[in-house]
Amino acid sequence: MSNELQAFIQTNQPIIEQKLAELIQEIHAPKKLKEAMAYSLQAGGKRIRPLFTLAVLEELNIKSEDATIVACTIEMIHTYSLVHDDLPAMDDDDLRRGKPTNHVVFGEALAILAGDALLTLAFGIVARLPELTAEQKIQLIERLSYAAGAEGMVGGQVLDILGEGKSLTLDELEKVHINKTGALLSYSILAGGIIANASEEIMKALQTYAFHIGLAFQIQDDILDIEGTSEQLGKTAGKDVLSEKNTYPSILTLAGAKEQLQKQYESAIGALKEVNMHEGLLVEFANYITKRSN
Amino acid sequence: MSNELQAFIQTNQPIIEQKLAELIQEIHAPKKLKEAMAYSLQAGGKRIRPLFTLAVLEELNIKSEDATIVACTIEMIHTYSLVHDDLPAMDDDDLRRGKPTNHVVFGEALAILAGDALLTLAFGIVARLPELTAEQKIQLIERLSYAAGAEGMVGGQVLDILGEGKSLTLDELEKVHINKTGALLSYSILAGGIIANASEEIMKALQTYAFHIGLAFQIQDDILDIEGTSEQLGKTAGKDVLSEKNTYPSILTLAGAKEQLQKQYESAIGALKEVNMHEGLLVEFANYITKRSN
Repeated sequence: MSNELQAFIQTNQPIIEQKLAELIQEIHAPKKLKEAMAYSLQAGGKRIRPLFTLAVLEELNIKSEDATIVACTIEMIHTYSLVHDDLPAMDDDDLRRGKPTNHVVFGEALAILAGDALLTLAFGIVARLPELTAEQKIQLIERLSYAAGAEGMVGGQVLDILGEGKSLTLDELEKVHINKTGALLSYSILAGGIIANASEEIMKALQTYAFHIGLAFQIQDDILDIEGTSEQLGKTAGKDVLSEKNTYPSILTLAGAKEQLQKQYESAIGALKEVNMHEGLLVEFANYITKRSN
Repeated sequence: MSNELQAFIQTNQPIIEQKLAELIQEIHAPKKLKEAMAYSLQAGGKRIRPLFTLAVLEELNIKSEDATIVACTIEMIHTYSLVHDDLPAMDDDDLRRGKPTNHVVFGEALAILAGDALLTLAFGIVARLPELTAEQKIQLIERLSYAAGAEGMVGGQVLDILGEGKSLTLDELEKVHINKTGALLSYSILAGGIIANASEEIMKALQTYAFHIGLAFQIQDDILDIEGTSEQLGKTAGKDVLSEKNTYPSILTLAGAKEQLQKQYESAIGALKEVNMHEGLLVEFANYITKRSN
């Protein structure tokens, strides 16, 4: 990781953590529910999505108090999706990042409701932002609903479930990822553009960058499952192969997946070049994502 | 039911049904997910909440195409809450209105995701309304998030779960209902006021009316469980007593509950009188809700 990116993360991660805690603390709700919401929200994680939002603002030289709050709402949506994914009826995971999952600690009913509450809260927080115009907020909410819902993340999750045990084509696998993880990641980048009132041209470049970086992120995930160690990953390596999951290496071979990763990386950087944003944080992020070891 | 109310329902219910079907049909999402969303959304029900929204508009003499759409988003939120409530981890209900519940037909994973998708879609649809101003949409979204989330419906559901097997006081029971069912019912009434650009005075009256009508609705539900027959109710009568559930009659006696119902009814009508809305649909609705037999 470059020094610039490292410094950016070290400055902004604690700001995100604190704001997340505040946003839960200030709601008037049953204590147990707030605990369940905060538990998963504060269970760690790289905070990639909120950092992306703030990085776009930084690159466009725009300061906005609202940006941190928007960044946090994206992490709420990401967290709710993890809480629901971990449920016994879904992936049935007892551990996430080495900690017991939400339903293990609070019970299934409360885990479902804490997820529902995080999702619902995210939209309300965007509607209440103090600085942005009503038009900007509506844009954010409209795109967030697409990215998180049936046409995005939830739809991708359904495709993933329906594809289990079947051999997917590369197109089908891409569709799963574009929806399941790409849509919300893309939103986190575009949200920065909306907050900054970026030009159409920049929005288009951000959209292309986001699309390719989302896929690159997933391909590297698949590669790491083969090449990484369990220690590096903080989860069992080699799990995809054992469970015969559809992955980029399983469809393209490991060498083919690496080639595909490079292609996505170059398309992402290419989009930034067209608007002269090819030096700075967004490129550093692309480097980090495609070269990370965890 | 008065002729006026009956005519209003007969006109508007089919409009709501058709718009609900259209709103699901037009999304681009996996077929199975759309089926699961449509299944519960079109499983019948009285459509009380959307009808309330449209009744407020009618009383204020405002025509708005957007109102029907807003009304449908409320039914989406109500439906998602029923789908999640019916899950094995929650109430574990196999039947609702005589039909198999969502998870019985589509499996638990898809039922959870269909609920998530309906909730997420509701916010996106409000953001995309063609006629309302961005400010009106933001007001609707902000209030909808409160009403449906940790500070409203989801919070009430949590209180209800935490209260199981305990004897609640009247205040505690009211708090459950104000949140669990009252908040969204209130929103359906206030949404009509927001769409109609109603004055502060009218909004305040609608808020008071909505608060008391929400409680009245719940008290009558509790009374019907004792006095109604299973045939009238379309569900097993007497279930609350058998399961030792906290209800208005269990805390106040049946006579006390009826007195309380009358009190809530009078407060609701009183609020309408202050703004000269005490003749017409909202009074008819209050009469119907407190005197219904199912």
